Amino acid sequence: MIKDTQSSVDIRKITIDRVGVKRVRHPLSILQRDGTPQASVAYCDLAVLLPAEQRGTHMSRFVELLNKIDTPLTAKNFTALLHTMLKHLEASQGGIQFEFPFFMQKIAPVSKRESLLDYKIILSAEQTKVTKVTCTVVVPVKSLCPCSKEISEYGAHNQRSHLTVTVAWNDSFSIEELIELIEAQGSSPIYSLLKRSDEKYLTEYAYNNPKFAEDLVRDTAAALDADTRFPCYKVEAENFESIHNHSAYAWIEKSNN
Amino acid sequence: MIKDTQSSVDIRKITIDRVGVKRVRHPLSILQRDGTPQASVAYCDLAVLLPAEQRGTHMSRFVELLNKIDTPLTAKNFTALLHTMLKHLEASQGGIQFEFPFFMQKIAPVSKRESLLDYKIILSAEQTKVTKVTCTVVVPVKSLCPCSKEISEYGAHNQRSHLTVTVAWNDSFSIEELIELIEAQGSSPIYSLLKRSDEKYLTEYAYNNPKFAEDLVRDTAAALDADTRFPCYKVEAENFESIHNHSAYAWIEKSNN
Amino acid sequence: MIKDTQSSVDIRKITIDRVGVKRVRHPLSILQRDGTPQASVAYCDLAVLLPAEQRGTHMSRFVELLNKIDTPLTAKNFTALLHTMLKHLEASQGGIQFEFPFFMQKIAPVSKRESLLDYKIILSAEQTKVTKVTCTVVVPVKSLCPCSKEISEYGAHNQRSHLTVTVAWNDSFSIEELIELIEAQGSSPIYSLLKRSDEKYLTEYAYNNPKFAEDLVRDTAAALDADTRFPCYKVEAENFESIHNHSAYAWIEKSNN
Amino acid sequence: MIKDTQSSVDIRKITIDRVGVKRVRHPLSILQRDGTPQASVAYCDLAVLLPAEQRGTHMSRFVELLNKIDTPLTAKNFTALLHTMLKHLEASQGGIQFEFPFFMQKIAPVSKRESLLDYKIILSAEQTKVTKVTCTVVVPVKSLCPCSKEISEYGAHNQRSHLTVTVAWNDSFSIEELIELIEAQGSSPIYSLLKRSDEKYLTEYAYNNPKFAEDLVRDTAAALDADTRFPCYKVEAENFESIHNHSAYAWIEKSNN
Repeated sequence: MIKDTQSSVDIRKITIDRVGVKRVRHPLSILQRDGTPQASVAYCDLAVLLPAEQRGTHMSRFVELLNKIDTPLTAKNFTALLHTMLKHLEASQGGIQFEFPFFMQKIAPVSKRESLLDYKIILSAEQTKVTKVTCTVVVPVKSLCPCSKEISEYGAHNQRSHLTVTVAWNDSFSIEELIELIEAQGSSPIYSLLKRSDEKYLTEYAYNNPKFAEDLVRDTAAALDADTRFPCYKVEAENFESIHNHSAYAWIEKSNN
Repeated sequence: MIKDTQSSVDIRKITIDRVGVKRVRHPLSILQRDGTPQASVAYCDLAVLLPAEQRGTHMSRFVELLNKIDTPLTAKNFTALLHTMLKHLEASQGGIQFEFPFFMQKIAPVSKRESLLDYKIILSAEQTKVTKVTCTVVVPVKSLCPCSKEISEYGAHNQRSHLTVTVAWNDSFSIEELIELIEAQGSSPIYSLLKRSDEKYLTEYAYNNPKFAEDLVRDTAAALDADTRFPCYKVEAENFESIHNHSAYAWIEKSNN
Repeated sequence: MIKDTQSSVDIRKITIDRVGVKRVRHPLSILQRDGTPQASVAYCDLAVLLPAEQRGTHMSRFVELLNKIDTPLTAKNFTALLHTMLKHLEASQGGIQFEFPFFMQKIAPVSKRESLLDYKIILSAEQTKVTKVTCTVVVPVKSLCPCSKEISEYGAHNQRSHLTVTVAWNDSFSIEELIELIEAQGSSPIYSLLKRSDEKYLTEYAYNNPKFAEDLVRDTAAALDADTRFPCYKVEAENFESIHNHSAYAWIEKSNN
Repeated sequence: MIKDTQSSVDIRKITIDRVGVKRVRHPLSILQRDGTPQASVAYCDLAVLLPAEQRGTHMSRFVELLNKIDTPLTAKNFTALLHTMLKHLEASQGGIQFEFPFFMQKIAPVSKRESLLDYKIILSAEQTKVTKVTCTVVVPVKSLCPCSKEISEYGAHNQRSHLTVTVAWNDSFSIEELIELIEAQGSSPIYSLLKRSDEKYLTEYAYNNPKFAEDLVRDTAAALDADTRFPCYKVEAENFESIHNHSAYAWIEKSNN
């Protein structure tokens, strides 16, 4: 019989808030809006609370849990996965986080050509006294500077921006819906494949729709406020400025209280 | 006169929690324990609260502020910098964060050879209703697995680990003292330059001092608990496991309450 | 009719070696050894030579090409993809590079538990005067220091290492075979899921099999030399040293001549 | 006496092209155009050829060499450092690479406000049969799309771009001169600190100066061709496209032959 060092008694009387595995790479399947699964590859973090009297956790059980996932991810079964983890690890608290690229088929505005665009998704499920499940999406858009447009005889500086939104995740909305809501708040959306007719359309569209980083977060917050499914959120905008070597950055958080 | 779009009135009635600049690279000088400055290069984030009625912030003032820093950084003048920023931006809330490499001269345990070791430092000053100034240090150490040692006839797997500690920053302690306190909690410290006599010493030292990720965070927490200058903290350990392609990870947080 | 700026004549008389798209994220399917496809997500770079007299390339055609891939990747159809790109872009030279995570099912040495391990793969196809198609695999292993073992009373420092091998890619071998050949050259292989019996086995196995970075590259080179399917290669080893905050690094290159 | 495992005889008969240390972080001082030093922090890679009959290299000597650098870096003493390394390691071949941020004081075009801008520098010295010393600079600029301008009623998409140039390094030119030559080839230069008058100037300047990635590399190549101090080079442009989530990329290489 091999000695079980992790299960020995600890005398330091210090509870560990979380202990587990980090940056485990694992294939992941996510249920899409149309009911079919999308294959992706995730970075997975799983951890639990360790009581003061226990020396170590059972690291291999986290990876076993990942290996047992056999249905495409939804808000419902992601929450169930959290509870399965807590049970297997005999833990009162814990959390799971999956970070992965997600693709949507997009249609260019004029040529109607189709292409895929990638979005970063972070799903998080945390059990403390309450269960909290959130979905974070990072949506790339174009932003065009209102000041630059206003003060210049012609042209306006513009750049790629990331709109990052975190909301409580449940099955009342699809990830695709959330992405579309956010994407509409940029000076213009972006695409992987554009023909010249599309490029003309988007250039003029963005010029007619100038937004500061401040406008991106306010307009996104207003769009979320108008939808009862998103009572709380954090909205962040980062503009990879084309006239600077740093970013302009803004965020708004709305909590329950 | 050029129109000032940022200063126009906003009608969306949405306060922006923070708006500013992110990832500005800037030289930085930090006051060392011995009273001399150390030159480094930082990534700087500066942001303020923007009231609902104001359209945009004054982005250039953040960079002006960075350019005006003319003394080596201390806890005291970093806090003063926060207040200067709030004044220049006419803001009630805001935050500054500097992330930079910091070097300490270390002496090999047997050969007494000297070399530099690098640590990542993150300084943060936040003004909400209260002023909160924190220092985060990332200290690389070696960890050796107690289970592997216990169950194996010979040897034990070990690896590089990062111990990351965040505490309130004030002038009652030096960054070097904090690093030394943390560094002592690994299975062994690490060095840039080691002779064979040192390698033998450290190999045996670590073998005699096995620690799980759980032990690293508990021992560091206990060491901070024993020092009245560190009433609150967050301690994280990440082991870049030599038998896995992922990390073992643990953290403990102690807050005021 | 929208003007085609890219097709205008250039008067600078400077050939561009490569022009195209970089870091396009796209789903990718790879044919496995067992004949079934594995779904992954790639970063894709595609570029062609642009003759001196032409102002610009047709950027959208690269993304169209990605969208048209409809069979799991093999050495044969990857080479065909290169030629399709050159034809669509009317180019005499060009290259494609795909970088993506790839998983293999591994069986723990004693408990026989199964888990997935991730490897980074880079596939490259380049057309100059000749066609060159290569496969690079990054294989994580454990390395244990022979010097540390030799000079110490007990224990030996060890760490995660990356063995990176580039060879000409063709259908005479599978990616899985190449990974297995490389993985056998570490002090021990690594796994995502290990039970205590496996941990004991691997700890002792690595202790009995100490290797410097120098040994890792030499042993891998020797293993490739012994296989007629790998006449040329580049072998790199990077040890993320557990006693330092930097890497030990070595490489060997064998070319045709 | 501690046994010297590295110095034992190797029987595998395989020469190692390079073995050494990688990603050592170290402070670095560089001599500026005005004769004063600039303090920075570098990632340092140092490696040598290891003959077939030798088991291992002397890793600690690389770090000792870094610790002994006591004068600001110039092309001349960087080359001398390479030769010192080869002598200390008793090696016939080897290489050193330093990567670090470098700052230049820039003056805004209209307001004349001063601010620092950061550039990434990579210095490389390689000894094979010949000695080759190169300097790579990564210069951020703005690029504005000629096609978008041409086909749109108003506006034009633009973005941050990186112009990366590698040339043989010697004391006939300063790093600052090389940066200025490259920076002039963008649609416009960029700055950390701009007032509204500057923003108007740069917006209009870039609109009057549209450039594809193809134009960026051709114009930079032409500028280098016009300067006898740069007989060989590699020029790369990467546009972080504001209408896509990927980059447009181009390069030109000019070699001796």
